[in-house]
Amino acid sequence: MSQIQKISHIGIAVKNLNDAINWYTNVLGLPLEGIEEVESERVRVAFLKIGESRIELLEPMTEESVIAHFINKQGEGIHHIAFEVMDLKMRLSDLEQKGVRLIHTEPKQGAHHMDIAFLHPKSTGGVLLELCQPQADGKE
Amino acid sequence: MSQIQKISHIGIAVKNLNDAINWYTNVLGLPLEGIEEVESERVRVAFLKIGESRIELLEPMTEESVIAHFINKQGEGIHHIAFEVMDLKMRLSDLEQKGVRLIHTEPKQGAHHMDIAFLHPKSTGGVLLELCQPQADGKE
Repeated sequence: MSQIQKISHIGIAVKNLNDAINWYTNVLGLPLEGIEEVESERVRVAFLKIGESRIELLEPMTEESVIAHFINKQGEGIHHIAFEVMDLKMRLSDLEQKGVRLIHTEPKQGAHHMDIAFLHPKSTGGVLLELCQPQADGKE
Repeated sequence: MSQIQKISHIGIAVKNLNDAINWYTNVLGLPLEGIEEVESERVRVAFLKIGESRIELLEPMTEESVIAHFINKQGEGIHHIAFEVMDLKMRLSDLEQKGVRLIHTEPKQGAHHMDIAFLHPKSTGGVLLELCQPQADGKE
């Protein structure tokens, strides 16, 4: 059985968070759940609910943010996808044993009460793939 | 209330479908649902189940396929995301009225017993966005 539960979210790089929120709520009709700043990544993040998943809009707070670099290089658009797992530590060690290159070998604190880790796109066919696990004390 | 039900699938462009299926099933542990050829798009498509959604792996069958062009231009990776709606015709007409540029103004036949239509990335902040609706006589 798959140990991956679902698509947690799709991360989309945007230049202007308010404009993007307007589009996703007013044009597509997705409900806004909340807005957070993730200081460590220098991004403002908005979450919109879609089924059991979320759209995560990512606006760079400074030119040094990885999201700013992404937008400068290839423009706005899909930045990463995230799959939810039950035991992130175990999954990372399993993937490492299978030869997958990891960006984070240990879970780190992400937005929205999640522990997260990214896999390297060289190991995933060009997809920037995040695994995440809701924190036990989180609101998930 | 949102008229978008859920993330239907994430479409990922791959050079070799069998290698990609192997990775998603053996490394990530996602179950393979099936493989289809979409003649009109000149692609072979594999579907993998993830929660209420799917991963759709897209391999070009010829160099003329849009997926071949995509891979030649920017390499393998996420090609599009698809949201499931209840009434595709009504949603397209609503989006058109809101000024969204559509690639398909009428639903067309897609893979996996779906009617589909793409929105233009110029209208969606760089995201190639597909809306799709399960066909009444489909297996969805």
